[in-house]
Amino acid sequence: MELTDEHLDTLAGLAIEVPSWAYGNSGTRFKVFATPGVPRDPFEKIDDAACVHALTGLAPSVALHIPWDQVDDVDALTRHAAERGVRIGTINSNTFQDDIYKLGSLCHPDAGVRKAAVEHHLACIDVMTATGSSDLKIWLADGTNYPGQDDLRARQDRLTEGLATIYAALAPHQRLVLEYKFFEPAFYHTDVPDWGTSLTHCLALGERARVCLDTGHHAPGTNIEFIVMQLLRLGRLGSFDFNSRFYADDDLIVGAADPFQLFRILAEVVRGGGLEADSGVVFMLDQCHNIEGKIPGQIRSVLNVVEMLARVLCLDTAALAEAQRRGDVLGANQILMDAFYTDVRPRLAQWRTERGLPADPMAAFLASGYQERIERERVGGVQAGWGA
Amino acid sequence: MELTDEHLDTLAGLAIEVPSWAYGNSGTRFKVFATPGVPRDPFEKIDDAACVHALTGLAPSVALHIPWDQVDDVDALTRHAAERGVRIGTINSNTFQDDIYKLGSLCHPDAGVRKAAVEHHLACIDVMTATGSSDLKIWLADGTNYPGQDDLRARQDRLTEGLATIYAALAPHQRLVLEYKFFEPAFYHTDVPDWGTSLTHCLALGERARVCLDTGHHAPGTNIEFIVMQLLRLGRLGSFDFNSRFYADDDLIVGAADPFQLFRILAEVVRGGGLEADSGVVFMLDQCHNIEGKIPGQIRSVLNVVEMLARVLCLDTAALAEAQRRGDVLGANQILMDAFYTDVRPRLAQWRTERGLPADPMAAFLASGYQERIERERVGGVQAGWGA
Amino acid sequence: MELTDEHLDTLAGLAIEVPSWAYGNSGTRFKVFATPGVPRDPFEKIDDAACVHALTGLAPSVALHIPWDQVDDVDALTRHAAERGVRIGTINSNTFQDDIYKLGSLCHPDAGVRKAAVEHHLACIDVMTATGSSDLKIWLADGTNYPGQDDLRARQDRLTEGLATIYAALAPHQRLVLEYKFFEPAFYHTDVPDWGTSLTHCLALGERARVCLDTGHHAPGTNIEFIVMQLLRLGRLGSFDFNSRFYADDDLIVGAADPFQLFRILAEVVRGGGLEADSGVVFMLDQCHNIEGKIPGQIRSVLNVVEMLARVLCLDTAALAEAQRRGDVLGANQILMDAFYTDVRPRLAQWRTERGLPADPMAAFLASGYQERIERERVGGVQAGWGA
Amino acid sequence: MELTDEHLDTLAGLAIEVPSWAYGNSGTRFKVFATPGVPRDPFEKIDDAACVHALTGLAPSVALHIPWDQVDDVDALTRHAAERGVRIGTINSNTFQDDIYKLGSLCHPDAGVRKAAVEHHLACIDVMTATGSSDLKIWLADGTNYPGQDDLRARQDRLTEGLATIYAALAPHQRLVLEYKFFEPAFYHTDVPDWGTSLTHCLALGERARVCLDTGHHAPGTNIEFIVMQLLRLGRLGSFDFNSRFYADDDLIVGAADPFQLFRILAEVVRGGGLEADSGVVFMLDQCHNIEGKIPGQIRSVLNVVEMLARVLCLDTAALAEAQRRGDVLGANQILMDAFYTDVRPRLAQWRTERGLPADPMAAFLASGYQERIERERVGGVQAGWGA
Repeated sequence: MELTDEHLDTLAGLAIEVPSWAYGNSGTRFKVFATPGVPRDPFEKIDDAACVHALTGLAPSVALHIPWDQVDDVDALTRHAAERGVRIGTINSNTFQDDIYKLGSLCHPDAGVRKAAVEHHLACIDVMTATGSSDLKIWLADGTNYPGQDDLRARQDRLTEGLATIYAALAPHQRLVLEYKFFEPAFYHTDVPDWGTSLTHCLALGERARVCLDTGHHAPGTNIEFIVMQLLRLGRLGSFDFNSRFYADDDLIVGAADPFQLFRILAEVVRGGGLEADSGVVFMLDQCHNIEGKIPGQIRSVLNVVEMLARVLCLDTAALAEAQRRGDVLGANQILMDAFYTDVRPRLAQWRTERGLPADPMAAFLASGYQERIERERVGGVQAGWGA
Repeated sequence: MELTDEHLDTLAGLAIEVPSWAYGNSGTRFKVFATPGVPRDPFEKIDDAACVHALTGLAPSVALHIPWDQVDDVDALTRHAAERGVRIGTINSNTFQDDIYKLGSLCHPDAGVRKAAVEHHLACIDVMTATGSSDLKIWLADGTNYPGQDDLRARQDRLTEGLATIYAALAPHQRLVLEYKFFEPAFYHTDVPDWGTSLTHCLALGERARVCLDTGHHAPGTNIEFIVMQLLRLGRLGSFDFNSRFYADDDLIVGAADPFQLFRILAEVVRGGGLEADSGVVFMLDQCHNIEGKIPGQIRSVLNVVEMLARVLCLDTAALAEAQRRGDVLGANQILMDAFYTDVRPRLAQWRTERGLPADPMAAFLASGYQERIERERVGGVQAGWGA
Repeated sequence: MELTDEHLDTLAGLAIEVPSWAYGNSGTRFKVFATPGVPRDPFEKIDDAACVHALTGLAPSVALHIPWDQVDDVDALTRHAAERGVRIGTINSNTFQDDIYKLGSLCHPDAGVRKAAVEHHLACIDVMTATGSSDLKIWLADGTNYPGQDDLRARQDRLTEGLATIYAALAPHQRLVLEYKFFEPAFYHTDVPDWGTSLTHCLALGERARVCLDTGHHAPGTNIEFIVMQLLRLGRLGSFDFNSRFYADDDLIVGAADPFQLFRILAEVVRGGGLEADSGVVFMLDQCHNIEGKIPGQIRSVLNVVEMLARVLCLDTAALAEAQRRGDVLGANQILMDAFYTDVRPRLAQWRTERGLPADPMAAFLASGYQERIERERVGGVQAGWGA
Repeated sequence: MELTDEHLDTLAGLAIEVPSWAYGNSGTRFKVFATPGVPRDPFEKIDDAACVHALTGLAPSVALHIPWDQVDDVDALTRHAAERGVRIGTINSNTFQDDIYKLGSLCHPDAGVRKAAVEHHLACIDVMTATGSSDLKIWLADGTNYPGQDDLRARQDRLTEGLATIYAALAPHQRLVLEYKFFEPAFYHTDVPDWGTSLTHCLALGERARVCLDTGHHAPGTNIEFIVMQLLRLGRLGSFDFNSRFYADDDLIVGAADPFQLFRILAEVVRGGGLEADSGVVFMLDQCHNIEGKIPGQIRSVLNVVEMLARVLCLDTAALAEAQRRGDVLGANQILMDAFYTDVRPRLAQWRTERGLPADPMAAFLASGYQERIERERVGGVQAGWGA
């Protein structure tokens, strides 16, 4: 099947949330390489995010990370975003960089540290309220490095208590989204290591607690699309953190490592209603452009998602269902592969032109002079990174 | 700390369930090597299991696998077990060897196949009732080999429906235990691949549905003791299938591949109350003795569990809690390691003697002439294996 | 870039070797499902392989497995192949199904067993000479299941000795190809677990010893195209065993699990001269069609390889080299992805028509009545499988 | 078997090399937590290393990392070490933190960068000559993050050329030790990803090129002791970087994650002659004490190695060989496990006392006041870490 106008209408409704931190410097424990033109503050990050949206038309919101994106005047930042044509999205908390969090935050053995971690989240909710953001995303770096270091079960109980306090502070239109991660930075155990644990806590919290699925946070070989299916089926998929990986949490550009996996994930999203307006599923990027350009990295990511979604829409679902019904293993697989191998790029380029966007957003960016300008203008100050 | 009399009393209450099929032939897709003396029928399997219990005093029950252990007269088999000093334990269903199950059983696209699979489980419940068994264990080989082959979500819905029918047929004192498995024999997706999926179904079924944790059924690197902790915390750990692995579902002798992992798992069992009489946790072995002796393989397994549990009991939990409380990473870890490195073997040998058991059950078996006798007597007929 | 006539000339030279055993039954340790129409002897396997070649024009040779394909009259089998338009390719030895090989073959602690294993290989060389085959492929199931079971180093020394004897028996135009495998059927250690070990033995043997790379025989996450590159660079890549996997040695259809990985592998093949006439690289399939049709499974595999190779040929290598030279990370990656996403299928269909072949070999097979005929005719006898 | 006096004599010859950087701060990409008392310069690192040696008697040398340990007066540092009772060991190069190395060093597409990387190594050789160090250890962070980013094969050729230049500059008594790593910081491919690649380069270089095996640098499930065996067999094992891991390159304390794996590795060391005086195998630690104390972390590591080696020495090798010879799978395994489960700690404590060392080096350190003193004295300046 080919891309139809109806498919393109569906794609027009796609909103990919970009992370403010993707525009800052990032790296590995071995080295963070600095990049010319990198933003010095949240306002400049918003500018870069707005540039990506202007070129792709598909990235209307920007996730913030507190305290990396803490500003004195939140309203000014919110207005700045609006003026640039984007809005503030998910607010991400951070309880892994203050010295008190060395052995954990919400799961820490010390009640004082847990209290500080809860209060940080309450402050994040204030930012949500000020910015109009509806999602509080919690990724915890909590865990241990050595067996015996702490009591796994007591930590779960502490977590339950902390999350309940935070959840209770949300306004009725706000949600808590709990992310899980297989490992790193903790190397023996992670307090929310898998979707089962995240779901367990969400069920205990209430209806507005959802699971965040980061595509890089699983054990080797995990069938991620199965989890997508299951969470959609249970009505508990809150958001994606899209990226890709060959090994661990590599945070590479989404679709770069295993494009067919991205196809299968998006096929389950469509199958499970995740694209529908009321699904409540947020499509966020969470990546590190360690060695490639930050803005180009984000443009590429947005394009990868929309192109792959277009391939999914080309799937002949009626023929597929029929092949599945009759147990035609190879026939059904072939129908799926036919969609994957469809070259949707020319039609999408044309569609962009029809929408007043550049046919080739990457070429348009490179020709725009934007990068040269920020490298020229953003001199002095401290480049944004994970530490600030 | 050393093993105390109180610890030994705790160990005396340990009951390890052995699987009938461990005494039959098993192998890989490449070859099943036959072993002299292997049982030809369920009665002879019971004999071998009784031999293991007689030597160790810790293996009082035998799990059956239907139809491998189907007999004309179930009562006779039950009596045979009682006469040999053991009893029938968990009943395991099998919906992966009939030709109709090529594309699944409870999740199959065809309603007729699903019906047959449900009926097989109802027949298993009849066996439970006849034998006095309280647990129906369901491990499904259901899954697909190729993306698109079937609809992942529809299969979950079919599974929900089939399990509900089976669960409804249980007597009030009977339980359904749902096992999960990462992969194999299906190579793209498995319908119950992880504890989260198993738990989800158990929650939907009711209080008497529990999760079975097979220690070989996880992705590489999975922290299994965390799952043990979580399921105990949620009151949903139904049983263990103990074995060990270096790579996939290798089904080696429990404790053979990574003894420290077994220690950590058992430490969470004790921590979470899994040893207590009312915990409802069944300790079962599920192994394949492909190249080693079957009965010695089971003796070794039983000994490995009890020895490791003894090491866990040596743990100075008060000192550990105190070290954890003060955030003493290395101190806490050292307390755990000290228990692991304690040599409990001499005291356990003495304890066995005190209980009227051989100090060295393996040596006693080798000296007993049992193996020579069954090799001599079990001539003719068809050796038991996975196919019969 | 698009597929050019020159590219198509290159593709016309492609020769994919099919394995005789792909047409027989296969399965897992849990169950081998029988398929109607499966060959009863090597002659019928050749018939099916010839059918695949007739429809695709790209599968002119058939690998045999001894003793599965042992026949009284090898010359008759060779002639039968020629009459059907194919020829006998690689001869694969088998030292894992005789009872004496329970603890190994060339690495076995017992000299008598090692001698038998060597002699089996000498018999295989006789078959090679009779069939005109130039490659002896050795995959050893040798290994151990438990630490301490045998002496890892002594086994290497025994292996060295056995291989040397076999190598010495080869005619000057014959080669020894040594396959490695990460695990299975041995679950603690494998005697040739990785390409480094295989290479080490090949270097010790001589120029006509090469490494066989089975794409399913690596640890999770292994960068297989790197190994392809390295072996081509060292002049020691002897052959591929193509298949695909999500977890372990799943033996799924090549290109089914991670198409982009197949693309990268083939890109390194082209880059390293592996397509050139004198490269000595054999492209073999080694798969198990457990639940899908055997002949369709082979047709799909052949098509997947040629389609992916066509995408590789679309790569703009000049532009890629230039982007790499200037350190343009995303630009270089994009050039690669552009080739991967090129839809080569229509041009290949046309090309097949130009060559007098069906545009759609799969549809042609389904319409041919071949399957119905063999299901009708192949009644009685014993279906071929791994055991015979 | 028990530890004999002969065994203790063997252990007395053990020399574990500690890394200077273990005493500085380290962490993950998320956070480097600072620790009070951490050294500000290489002299203070030597002091801490000397403390570990004074307490254990088994850590007589310190590996340096250039430029982290670059000092104006190398002779002064060498004398400082001698005065503290230790000596300078392996010199580790570093080509991953200068901005020019963003896309590689010895494998970089730009000849100028490659030249700089070679020159850095020549400067390291100068340090070796000045300090009397005999080993230049090269771990390259070189690799790529995205397929197509660079030419895998051209990078190998550049690597070959660079290594040859460096090797040629070594004095006749100096060695080049080439480390391999599965992934990180590069996330698509690593230029020296496995032992096969490292060995290939060593063979091309000459007799004094050896492989460095870091126990954390392998794919999940890799049988590391097999590689140890193979490299010893080939005479190419140059050194260990000991640490342990649950997931990736976690750099935890050696023996902490899987003690039985450490046992098996050391058993192959002993089996292969790696403990003998002329083996040329260097036993180095390479760890990150991110959340635990640095000096206690090193003490624990040294003790773990010696304790595990003591268990290995308890192995009844004659009985093992006999059990292996007769194919007694479980018997042989049991002999191995018996050694592993032997409690060697009391005898080792006594042995330390006999040698004039504290029976419990960890308790002695904690009681010594050393930590309190350095926390008091090391105020001001910049704490050492990976960046300086």
